Amino acid sequence: MSSISMSKGLEVSVLNQGFEVHFNGVLFLQHTTEHPAFYVGYGEESIDMYRGNFNIKDYVSERVALRYTQVQEENGEYRIDFRGHEQGERVLSLQVKVESERLKLEYTKHDTKTNRFWVRIAADPTEKVYGCGEQLSHFNMRGKNFPLWTSEPGVGRNKNSYITWQADVKDKAGGDYYNTNFPQPTYVSTQKYYCHTETTAYADFDFRNDSFHELQVWEVPQYMLFETAETYLGLVEKITALFGRQPELPDWVYNGVILGIQGGTHVVEEKLAKAEEKGIKVAGVWCQDWQGKRITSFGKRLMWNWAWNPQEYPELDTKIPEWKSKGVRFLGYINPYVAVEGELYKEAEQKGYLARNQEGGTYLVDFGEFYCGVVDFTNEQATEWYKQVIKDNMIDFGLDGWMADFGEYLPTDVVLSDGSDPKLMHNAWPTMWAKTNYDAVSEAGKLGEIVYFMRAGYTGVQKYSTMLWGGDQSVDWSLDDGLASVIPAALSSGMIGCGLHHSDIGGYTSLHGNKRSKELLMRWADMGAFTPMMRTHEANRPDDCFQYDGDEETLEHFARMSNIFVTIAPYTKSLVKENAKRGIPVQRPLFMHYENDPKTYDIQYQYLFGKDMLVAPVHQEAQTEWELYLPEDEWIHLWTGKEYRGGTVTVAAPIGQPPVFYRKDSMWKDLFQTVGQL
Amino acid sequence: MSSISMSKGLEVSVLNQGFEVHFNGVLFLQHTTEHPAFYVGYGEESIDMYRGNFNIKDYVSERVALRYTQVQEENGEYRIDFRGHEQGERVLSLQVKVESERLKLEYTKHDTKTNRFWVRIAADPTEKVYGCGEQLSHFNMRGKNFPLWTSEPGVGRNKNSYITWQADVKDKAGGDYYNTNFPQPTYVSTQKYYCHTETTAYADFDFRNDSFHELQVWEVPQYMLFETAETYLGLVEKITALFGRQPELPDWVYNGVILGIQGGTHVVEEKLAKAEEKGIKVAGVWCQDWQGKRITSFGKRLMWNWAWNPQEYPELDTKIPEWKSKGVRFLGYINPYVAVEGELYKEAEQKGYLARNQEGGTYLVDFGEFYCGVVDFTNEQATEWYKQVIKDNMIDFGLDGWMADFGEYLPTDVVLSDGSDPKLMHNAWPTMWAKTNYDAVSEAGKLGEIVYFMRAGYTGVQKYSTMLWGGDQSVDWSLDDGLASVIPAALSSGMIGCGLHHSDIGGYTSLHGNKRSKELLMRWADMGAFTPMMRTHEANRPDDCFQYDGDEETLEHFARMSNIFVTIAPYTKSLVKENAKRGIPVQRPLFMHYENDPKTYDIQYQYLFGKDMLVAPVHQEAQTEWELYLPEDEWIHLWTGKEYRGGTVTVAAPIGQPPVFYRKDSMWKDLFQTVGQL
Repeated sequence: MSSISMSKGLEVSVLNQGFEVHFNGVLFLQHTTEHPAFYVGYGEESIDMYRGNFNIKDYVSERVALRYTQVQEENGEYRIDFRGHEQGERVLSLQVKVESERLKLEYTKHDTKTNRFWVRIAADPTEKVYGCGEQLSHFNMRGKNFPLWTSEPGVGRNKNSYITWQADVKDKAGGDYYNTNFPQPTYVSTQKYYCHTETTAYADFDFRNDSFHELQVWEVPQYMLFETAETYLGLVEKITALFGRQPELPDWVYNGVILGIQGGTHVVEEKLAKAEEKGIKVAGVWCQDWQGKRITSFGKRLMWNWAWNPQEYPELDTKIPEWKSKGVRFLGYINPYVAVEGELYKEAEQKGYLARNQEGGTYLVDFGEFYCGVVDFTNEQATEWYKQVIKDNMIDFGLDGWMADFGEYLPTDVVLSDGSDPKLMHNAWPTMWAKTNYDAVSEAGKLGEIVYFMRAGYTGVQKYSTMLWGGDQSVDWSLDDGLASVIPAALSSGMIGCGLHHSDIGGYTSLHGNKRSKELLMRWADMGAFTPMMRTHEANRPDDCFQYDGDEETLEHFARMSNIFVTIAPYTKSLVKENAKRGIPVQRPLFMHYENDPKTYDIQYQYLFGKDMLVAPVHQEAQTEWELYLPEDEWIHLWTGKEYRGGTVTVAAPIGQPPVFYRKDSMWKDLFQTVGQL
Repeated sequence: MSSISMSKGLEVSVLNQGFEVHFNGVLFLQHTTEHPAFYVGYGEESIDMYRGNFNIKDYVSERVALRYTQVQEENGEYRIDFRGHEQGERVLSLQVKVESERLKLEYTKHDTKTNRFWVRIAADPTEKVYGCGEQLSHFNMRGKNFPLWTSEPGVGRNKNSYITWQADVKDKAGGDYYNTNFPQPTYVSTQKYYCHTETTAYADFDFRNDSFHELQVWEVPQYMLFETAETYLGLVEKITALFGRQPELPDWVYNGVILGIQGGTHVVEEKLAKAEEKGIKVAGVWCQDWQGKRITSFGKRLMWNWAWNPQEYPELDTKIPEWKSKGVRFLGYINPYVAVEGELYKEAEQKGYLARNQEGGTYLVDFGEFYCGVVDFTNEQATEWYKQVIKDNMIDFGLDGWMADFGEYLPTDVVLSDGSDPKLMHNAWPTMWAKTNYDAVSEAGKLGEIVYFMRAGYTGVQKYSTMLWGGDQSVDWSLDDGLASVIPAALSSGMIGCGLHHSDIGGYTSLHGNKRSKELLMRWADMGAFTPMMRTHEANRPDDCFQYDGDEETLEHFARMSNIFVTIAPYTKSLVKENAKRGIPVQRPLFMHYENDPKTYDIQYQYLFGKDMLVAPVHQEAQTEWELYLPEDEWIHLWTGKEYRGGTVTVAAPIGQPPVFYRKDSMWKDLFQTVGQL
């Protein structure tokens, strides 16, 4: 082995039959003719979308190992040319350099046919990996492969569950462990580095092998970035320096729960009165149907014409300031599609702002018994127009927030205004949608006052999304699609720079006989109090689902948990500030602060709520106590004040007293004690 | 294009950038650098077996198009050398020649790493293909791919069915459309040729493309054969000339139904008396449990020690000749495994006749709550020994037939006596098992007197299997796993040379709440009368399944249908003879005699019973009439004598009068009229 040189932490060694790339002491590439690290090829994919669920198949007719390499150095950068055959033309070139303290691998392909790319990043058998967007089933992704394509996350998400099977058979909607609204080709390794691949193409990251991670991309990606750090805190700081950081949440968010209410002005007034009467602390009301609704077989659906619907919400224009003066904000709903029946659709179609089909007409997407046009964000004028819709109809109307839903449905056979390939724009769409919201809010001077929350995401959404929510969980206890699943979702998205996460309290999807129980709703509220935002959802079929005002006991429970949320807010707010400043997520995996404890690396149903608090939500039915793991430290059980030093412990876990611990030497100890006495 | 030469129907043309191979006017290979027909590569498979159900995954790390070719001619043969790269070494050679009027493509690989092979056989978009062993879901295979690996066929075999889902979740046993006990890499095309690939490796034949069939094999196969004919009759004649033909069935088979009975000598006597009393014509009794049984959660299972069990069947040694003298034969059961509890296991283990595990011990296969050793047919002495077991314990004991069950379970991590690769022996096993039976019967001079029936198969089983049965259908009306499924099974296996087929009357698998109804049993008997052998099965859970002696009406029905079977036997026998002589199957697709009628090519739930009879079994519940298709001819409805000239017709279809038609000018007309009056 002869090392060519070393500069800025980069070491490229030429081996007898290949090369190695180390950066800051970490081996990233190891390539020999016997064990090549690079492959290119040609595939023909078939992509079928049914209501946001994708059936994607690939038929790879060629996959060539790029065995033969030539390494050249110039000014501390390296160019490596790859050939599939010793005497052949070079097929791929790789520029290896250090830029802004990041290892950068820049790719150039030299033939036009290649549309598949595989790279094997050197790995250690014991290494674990996290991230790849918002992963709902597996926080540590080692041992599985993860297709990265924004889509519906699936109903059930486990082929062994009856719900999943029913959803698959009836709606092709069951999903699997890897389906997510928010994928991203970025992961963090326990080798203390992150790896980001710059591409929006379909990708599939395979973490099943002992000695390498094989990253597959359906194009030769532009470049890959690697950065190392001494600690995981350092890593997320660097990741968010790359992707951007989220603003702080508005102060009003900490005033209580945001109640998901539908049904019109009168219903809101009634429910607010009731909440006040029962002592529920309310920060806002979130009325999805502020712009009207429709009934489908799926449940209540919205009108998808993004403007106040005075029939549904009479006097809303005057009610919003009135409620606001009482400390209750009004939140609405929007997504990047416009329903054919609405005025916005007519306007957009007339102006040519909607994506087209192959025949030149407006592309209509089936959203389940109704059809919509797709606002074409590749058309600057269309984006400007939609931004103006948000400004005029929502911000100026007085909304203080909204669900910025969807973003995952860009069909791959759509014709876009700028001629770009929809297969490459599909994954890019969520970030474009986020940016449209961000720009509207930002240009209105309301950043930090308005909060919109998104489920879809992709690279770059970090900066443009003021808050994530976990998407549409099933109203059940299932690990893959119920209460538990939002914990790995928060942890994984936090690892790649989205440090603000919350979920529909009680879950959303009630289908195939699945109905929300009172117990599930209460346990979910238990958890919600220890996240940066509390918000309820009526679910898709409210009549089948227990509601926060379903009985006295539940009302009292929401009074209690919203009070806890408000009381602990100074601490929460400090965490949100840390996220805005340094990109350190509010909900953190245990290993982020206890990296020497090997047990912490596979815990995905507990989290640190900041450095000083550990939360282990009860995610199973009918529990009176709960077993959890505490890394070695001085922990105080929030409700009993009992001290623990670490290890596997079992605590009483009645509803309303979720298993929560704080560090004895925390500067927030007094506040925590106050909370514990509530 | 410059044609090199033409000899014996073979034309190899060298194109500007490739070549074409025609044989007897049919284009088989079209290869250019732009559209190569040959690919080789390297894959790492994972094969998990659970009770005969395989989870097979492949990870192909290299797949190289063999673009560059060189064609050389010598004495009317052609050698084509393939290179993956213009300047590269040759990777594969192909010898193209005509041998015994067959086009033969002989392959030689020149590197050791290659373990994947793909060839694209030229196709026409409208072409249809049949065969590939015994296919239960799709007779015409165009539009799908067919993995070829002998295995359990699956319970339900349709991912949309509840039974399949339950079977998958509980036992990994649901299966899919392609799972079969009897795969074979041989197909027949409507281009009027057959194509056979000589290999026992895992294969996957992909008929989804318009302009080619892509045949994948997990080795470079030894050779491929193609033969053309003017007619489909000519094709099956040629196929069976290649693979061998089956002997005729013993005469006693036509004497009536073979009753599947379990429970011991006394039960047999009682049931025979009852059958006689009710006028059921009985050719034999088939007692699986002649060698003992056990009870598992699956249902009644057998003891798997292949010798008379006098506790279970007292006096069987004297009863067999007694029953035989009354015209009732006794049939038993055997398979190629020996249960650990039995004497045969002890003997085999002592003598070293059982396949070994990696640690050198005896490999035990889980058959569902009990374990067995695998008789190692690669060990000549073991095969001899097992043949002797069949001779001594079965033939000499007086058995006139048996179910020669299983053959699909050879694990791929077993260690075989001759050192051969179990991944290559897995598919070979059914034929070795068949040959063991064949040799035993043949050496005992009993060919044509004894009938053993098999479910497993592979290339070459044609010659060695005296009869197929359709395997373990579910006791239901499902297309993929119920009554209907045995029709494409008979047709597809018939296309590649197994012209004798029958099925368990009533089906076999009763699981997950699925129970056999009286109606299903009766409809199945309706069909059974128009196959070469009638045999009932109690099913795995007899108490959950309606039986032939379940009530008076059913007993009468079996009397009627067995009488029909016996009456029509002279005709059936002539068909069986034709199969023995020319390889023309007893049950034939409609296009075999009506090849100019395009509608006949996609009919898979009707069949011609010989040239002169058309059968359209009622395979749905609660039908009083039945719609079917008649190709243009003069047809007489068997039961009413009404004449039809072809087209889609609907006839009354009460139980006991299945939709059956005969040709008006048949030489068997009088016999058919007699049957019609029964």
